[in-house]
Amino acid sequence: MTILTSEPDAPPDTDPAGDSGAAAHVEFRTQVSAYRHWRLGFDGPIATLTMDVDEQGGLVPGYELKLNSYDLGVDIELYDAVQRLRFEHPEVRAVVVTSGKEKIFCAGANIRMLAASAHAWKVNFCKFTNETRNGIEDATANSKQTYLAACNGTASGGGYELALACEHIMLVDDRSSAVSLPELSLLGVLPGTGGLTRVSDKRHVRRDVADYFSTKTEGIGGRKAVDWRLVDEAVPRTVWDSTVAERAREFAARSNRPEQARGIELTPLQKTRTDTEISYRYVTARLDRERRVVEITVLGPQRDAPADAAGVHAQGADFWALAMTRELDDLILDLRTNETGLGTWTFCTRGDTARVLAYDALLLDNGDDWLVNEIVLYLKRTLKRLDVTSRSLIALVEPGSCFAGSLLELALAADRSFQLTGVFEDIDPDAEPAAVTVAPMNLGPLPMGNGLTRLQSRFYGDDDGLAAAESAQGEALRAEDAGRLGLVTFTPDDIDWDDEVRIAIEERTGFSPDALTGLEANYRFTGPETLETKIFGRLTAWQNWIFTRPNASGPEGALRKYGTGQRAEFHKERV
Amino acid sequence: MTILTSEPDAPPDTDPAGDSGAAAHVEFRTQVSAYRHWRLGFDGPIATLTMDVDEQGGLVPGYELKLNSYDLGVDIELYDAVQRLRFEHPEVRAVVVTSGKEKIFCAGANIRMLAASAHAWKVNFCKFTNETRNGIEDATANSKQTYLAACNGTASGGGYELALACEHIMLVDDRSSAVSLPELSLLGVLPGTGGLTRVSDKRHVRRDVADYFSTKTEGIGGRKAVDWRLVDEAVPRTVWDSTVAERAREFAARSNRPEQARGIELTPLQKTRTDTEISYRYVTARLDRERRVVEITVLGPQRDAPADAAGVHAQGADFWALAMTRELDDLILDLRTNETGLGTWTFCTRGDTARVLAYDALLLDNGDDWLVNEIVLYLKRTLKRLDVTSRSLIALVEPGSCFAGSLLELALAADRSFQLTGVFEDIDPDAEPAAVTVAPMNLGPLPMGNGLTRLQSRFYGDDDGLAAAESAQGEALRAEDAGRLGLVTFTPDDIDWDDEVRIAIEERTGFSPDALTGLEANYRFTGPETLETKIFGRLTAWQNWIFTRPNASGPEGALRKYGTGQRAEFHKERV
Repeated sequence: MTILTSEPDAPPDTDPAGDSGAAAHVEFRTQVSAYRHWRLGFDGPIATLTMDVDEQGGLVPGYELKLNSYDLGVDIELYDAVQRLRFEHPEVRAVVVTSGKEKIFCAGANIRMLAASAHAWKVNFCKFTNETRNGIEDATANSKQTYLAACNGTASGGGYELALACEHIMLVDDRSSAVSLPELSLLGVLPGTGGLTRVSDKRHVRRDVADYFSTKTEGIGGRKAVDWRLVDEAVPRTVWDSTVAERAREFAARSNRPEQARGIELTPLQKTRTDTEISYRYVTARLDRERRVVEITVLGPQRDAPADAAGVHAQGADFWALAMTRELDDLILDLRTNETGLGTWTFCTRGDTARVLAYDALLLDNGDDWLVNEIVLYLKRTLKRLDVTSRSLIALVEPGSCFAGSLLELALAADRSFQLTGVFEDIDPDAEPAAVTVAPMNLGPLPMGNGLTRLQSRFYGDDDGLAAAESAQGEALRAEDAGRLGLVTFTPDDIDWDDEVRIAIEERTGFSPDALTGLEANYRFTGPETLETKIFGRLTAWQNWIFTRPNASGPEGALRKYGTGQRAEFHKERV
Repeated sequence: MTILTSEPDAPPDTDPAGDSGAAAHVEFRTQVSAYRHWRLGFDGPIATLTMDVDEQGGLVPGYELKLNSYDLGVDIELYDAVQRLRFEHPEVRAVVVTSGKEKIFCAGANIRMLAASAHAWKVNFCKFTNETRNGIEDATANSKQTYLAACNGTASGGGYELALACEHIMLVDDRSSAVSLPELSLLGVLPGTGGLTRVSDKRHVRRDVADYFSTKTEGIGGRKAVDWRLVDEAVPRTVWDSTVAERAREFAARSNRPEQARGIELTPLQKTRTDTEISYRYVTARLDRERRVVEITVLGPQRDAPADAAGVHAQGADFWALAMTRELDDLILDLRTNETGLGTWTFCTRGDTARVLAYDALLLDNGDDWLVNEIVLYLKRTLKRLDVTSRSLIALVEPGSCFAGSLLELALAADRSFQLTGVFEDIDPDAEPAAVTVAPMNLGPLPMGNGLTRLQSRFYGDDDGLAAAESAQGEALRAEDAGRLGLVTFTPDDIDWDDEVRIAIEERTGFSPDALTGLEANYRFTGPETLETKIFGRLTAWQNWIFTRPNASGPEGALRKYGTGQRAEFHKERV
């Protein structure tokens, strides 16, 4: 029950990659009243999200969260707040992120926590924080809730990276406050939450200037930070409050959020968790520790779709598409963090295809409704989580399944898929054979991080294949057709099904998990790259490599030596 | 004097990252008559490059190069052959790459060599082999020497990756020959030479099919390999020779190479190497082991440019631009491989700016001459080598330098640059102050791997900055102007120069070399990604991470266990 493979002050690990570390059980569900580190305030269309980290509130013992530094627990609250702002507060048009501490905005990820945690924990922590920051950008771009960073003190490392995820960065101009990325010089690692990519590809800081900035431990403040594009404005303390308020009003005024809308409550997610099963209303996961597999089943809607957007509002968090997405989101986070030994996830669906398509149609027909828009965006983000999940994903399309439209995306996100030809004779010889259905939800509203739909990624460079798959829209495609169109990988019949699926899973479990992670990270993202895919590809992969190197995580490495008063001893070889 | 940190059968390293391993001295210069592993044959416009690896010809002791497996020594010859085909054989329009062995095309990189080599060696080896394969694609695309892979037996791992770099892949259809990427299943690593990226982004193999193929140890042959886009044709052995010849003629017929051109000889490169200096005619490198710096000086042309393309042909390998590029290329390869402890490279130039620009103009005015075209392409590839070099690059622009046009690219490739404001009063108070000059060579002919010019990368997202820099074309820009335009990073004067440069270098030397590699790999490649940058970014970074992991390189890892009859013991945790 600890994420620590060693106490920070204890003798360092002999295995800094830390594969031995049993992880603490982490729960991602929370609510505003339970926050220990953030405050949410509202003033009409402007929300203020104040970071005021409880030093003693670390997720596990062994470190103090000084100077508004954060750990996973702090970021879980941030994620929750960003979600609630979108769903519960449609009236909010601008969100000011600021600090409740004097002179410090945020010092970034807690170093003692990082130094003491196992490799897998570091990587998973960075992935989640990256997703939350991408979600902040998604809210700004697609929900017109624009995030402003009001850095009322120094923003260093992950603190500056949090600011970088905001649309507008204000820094107090007081001769001491600065923005900085001190990871390289102090810790021998990279800024792990998109910092380098956003500095160059989002804020367009010139590469040599960025290089200098990223080696300057104390950072840059004032006018120079503005000139170098590191922040948007440097504001004297005397006019700080008024300028922040003014800027928030300006950004709020540009939003097209509805005036009189009322939010829906993200009611507590009902979840049952045992050692062998995690279950929610629409999503169930069976944990098979022996085979190292999680069998995930997603249920389609149990009742007909409401007639219109008003019906969606009336159902709120009970509305199938939203409820299912919340459950899937929580499950992915839970499994990624708590079940690192279960390397393969299978996906089944069960339900009525026509109903799934009716819910899809309702969502797509009402895209101008703020809540409907939010639900589709949330599903998009949740599917993106799957794409960057370091687990092998296998979809199983059987009779009674409903892989259509939004749920077909689960199969398209999988590394491989199997669709049964015919039926299971022993189970139900009269069943309708399994089918998959391409629908409008597969043609645009749920893009991957690379900006392409999963179908476009699948048929990247094969325009004819893409056109054929897209033009099969609306047809219930049985195995023969789905296989021919390239929508599924294998189409065994009743006789071969069990063996083929079993062998595929067993084989997967026998491979090197690391090599699988690399393989999947490459094949899942064909074609173009974006800020987002560069963060999860180029930047993250380099960071993971650096994390494993003795210069960072070895006994004499910089992460271990930080705060001891001793200097790290680096191997000087360039690789 | 060995690349091996342990003998393959000796007890495994306690430090599989192998930072301890002193590298063998490797020389990249060779010539056809010295080849041990390749044969070059010519039949009019068609060249045949036959791989026939000498089992006993490994670069260092400790492994046998069975089944046409290769090590760095084999690839150095391949690189030499590709270069000579371009410069010495303009009549060649198609190059058939095939094997001199029975039943095997190429088994890829030698596993025992990989397993026993230090981490830095693995990474550098993969980088060079990647560059050579990119060069093959460059020859096909830009020199109209089209490479065909004639796989007359199984092409596995790096062998298939070599074929993937060719424009057309033929596989003998004999029920036993296959193409395969067995790295994941056999070795617990990725195919290290662009395989995954080319399978998905070049050959457009569907992601799930690619996933399956990459886990199927024995690979895929015959009709299925064609259907899955893994090869272009499967050819029965009975018509193999005739079909290969016919296909080569077809591709040759599409080329616009000159009919009657005569090649120039790439005469042996004159090089002097001591422990403290590597010098050629136009390029000199001082190795400062104490400061861990290499001071590189590039001389501009010593005489006026010839009047026309005929003059370039007449000078051949002595022509300044070609001679300088060959020297720089060899130096980069030498330093990368042999001097991993020297982490910072500084670049100075010395010479007459007008002459550099005259050579540039001659090259650009005669782009339709095959040799001139080759010289510019070669310079492009050599500058790309710099971009992916894991060393900090610092340009120093002093009086007497000639950072103009093609040589300005050295400064634009640097992570930082310094330009002296004014002159060195003690050295030459009457000197002309240092200047840099933007010229047409900076505006297109020498793109980076991301498809942008170095100026476009530098000003990515800053169109005004780019326009201002480009419109300063032809002006000798002193420090004030170059600094204002963002062409150099710092512009200290005589009083500050020594201290500023010294501190920048010392500071760099003090940082974690790994973190610097990650930082530079991110900042150097802003903006779009291409096949090439994805190989050096996403793919390589993941591979490097996998290489450092115990599952690959630990005592029980797959690389160490390969060939021992024992199975690797994997940590099952997914990260």
